[in-house]
Amino acid sequence: MDAFDVTILGCSSALPAFGRYPSSQLIHIAGRYFLVDCGEGAQMQLRRFSIKFQRIDHIFISHLHGDHYLGLPGLMASMHLLGRTEPLHLYADEGLHQILEVNNKHSHTTLKYPVVFHPLNFSEPSVLFEDEKVKIATLILKHSIQCCGFIFEERDRPRKLIKEKMEEYKIPITSYETLKMGEDYIHREGTIIPNTELTTDPLPPRKYAYCSDTIYNKGLLPQLQNADLVYHESTFMEDMRQRADQTMHSTAKDAANIAKEAHAKRLLLGHFSARYKDLNPLLEEARSIFPATYLAQEGEKYFV
Amino acid sequence: MDAFDVTILGCSSALPAFGRYPSSQLIHIAGRYFLVDCGEGAQMQLRRFSIKFQRIDHIFISHLHGDHYLGLPGLMASMHLLGRTEPLHLYADEGLHQILEVNNKHSHTTLKYPVVFHPLNFSEPSVLFEDEKVKIATLILKHSIQCCGFIFEERDRPRKLIKEKMEEYKIPITSYETLKMGEDYIHREGTIIPNTELTTDPLPPRKYAYCSDTIYNKGLLPQLQNADLVYHESTFMEDMRQRADQTMHSTAKDAANIAKEAHAKRLLLGHFSARYKDLNPLLEEARSIFPATYLAQEGEKYFV
Repeated sequence: MDAFDVTILGCSSALPAFGRYPSSQLIHIAGRYFLVDCGEGAQMQLRRFSIKFQRIDHIFISHLHGDHYLGLPGLMASMHLLGRTEPLHLYADEGLHQILEVNNKHSHTTLKYPVVFHPLNFSEPSVLFEDEKVKIATLILKHSIQCCGFIFEERDRPRKLIKEKMEEYKIPITSYETLKMGEDYIHREGTIIPNTELTTDPLPPRKYAYCSDTIYNKGLLPQLQNADLVYHESTFMEDMRQRADQTMHSTAKDAANIAKEAHAKRLLLGHFSARYKDLNPLLEEARSIFPATYLAQEGEKYFV
Repeated sequence: MDAFDVTILGCSSALPAFGRYPSSQLIHIAGRYFLVDCGEGAQMQLRRFSIKFQRIDHIFISHLHGDHYLGLPGLMASMHLLGRTEPLHLYADEGLHQILEVNNKHSHTTLKYPVVFHPLNFSEPSVLFEDEKVKIATLILKHSIQCCGFIFEERDRPRKLIKEKMEEYKIPITSYETLKMGEDYIHREGTIIPNTELTTDPLPPRKYAYCSDTIYNKGLLPQLQNADLVYHESTFMEDMRQRADQTMHSTAKDAANIAKEAHAKRLLLGHFSARYKDLNPLLEEARSIFPATYLAQEGEKYFV
């Protein structure tokens, strides 16, 4: 089974504190690496956790609050200094393009690699990336400025071959791929062996959703349905409800309610306010509603 | 004696490596705190070393290569979130003003405190800040883009009162200030007591110079003359001479020669290339020319 995991590089909200870095995480799916948000210091965190920069070909920026993108110009400069020539795909508010251009203009920088900029559509969910194994789409979040989440899904996975049947019917390896795709097997003499006799159902495709920054938003539920793992911001606790509403952020309770209503398997809390040194009260608040809740921790890898 | 010291926040060159952060340092002089350069992660380093952000009212940016300013937008946002209302003075290439404006525009940020922008003159040395205790001026460096260093000098220090003489002549406390400034004392009866009988010479004013990024530049020598501490970039060692020339950086040998020719008291090496994990060879190269050389280390405080 292909690895599908999330490594947290930063889980602080806007004001970094207690050694926590601003938002950034690395999604590893089907052998590819996608960076989601790139807060200040993301490149130092990648170094610290021994993750090679050049494996990253796609970077998704949820919105243009500094704690979600200020690490990008530095990371891009480092990729350049490390000799990158492969294209880098950026998915972000088109304002980011202007920000990067102004930086490059004043530092007299011409990157050695092409940057392909994909401006995000913040009015309806759209597919950003798709290949035979992975599909990545946006989630429309509700925040003080236009903001997207991202959903990473495996494509329908191949059916599983029954080894004994392969041997019994002497099925040649060249036919395996069509069997995995669900086709029946036609023997040389014309006899048909139904696919269901040769294969078993595949594992269901896995799904990971990244929701930051947002208020509690029921509109997300259809896309989050049955997700294996949901990362949801929980900047505050319920006793800070007013501040959460004012700043258009969620509480741990909001995050838990979303996970519960979406029938998610697990919930990962992040984007913690600098007011919380100890995060366990947030965890308890969420677990009282949705027990399979965990705290994002920098350097930790969470399997989807 | 007033404290005068330098705390290193970052001493890496453009590509951060081995846990080293890009350029940034805090100068503490006469009770004031000045930030010099603000590479990515400077605010995390300030936190890590328990230095209060809000003590900083003046930030000097040597040039607009990302490793010298990319931490500034985040630090400024954090100052805002922490409720700053005091003005912040920025001294930098005027391009930085445009960079900050584009960032604020897209994040819909209006800072709660005033920013006073002082564009640098890169063609000749100029005084940036002056009060009764401190004078800060630019050093014109030679780099691939326009670049300034900074020199921090104490103003002439007050003469030292001889305690026994104060008692002997029953000199009132209200006269101490004029005595410290070198004036004679006139007794009620009209007798004059010469200042030299009442005071001793003050300690010589101290001087710190920050030189990054630059090639070896003899033009700096008059300003650096007899400096108590010189921070000089030493991105490379002498065996990388060609690369140093190409990128307009110095070697450890260049830095040592500058310190020696300026009759500096001590030299601090910094802005180390990511190719050096162990920095001792750079130290040895410099010490063979200028023995009072030290390596910049993050979190360390160096007395001037």
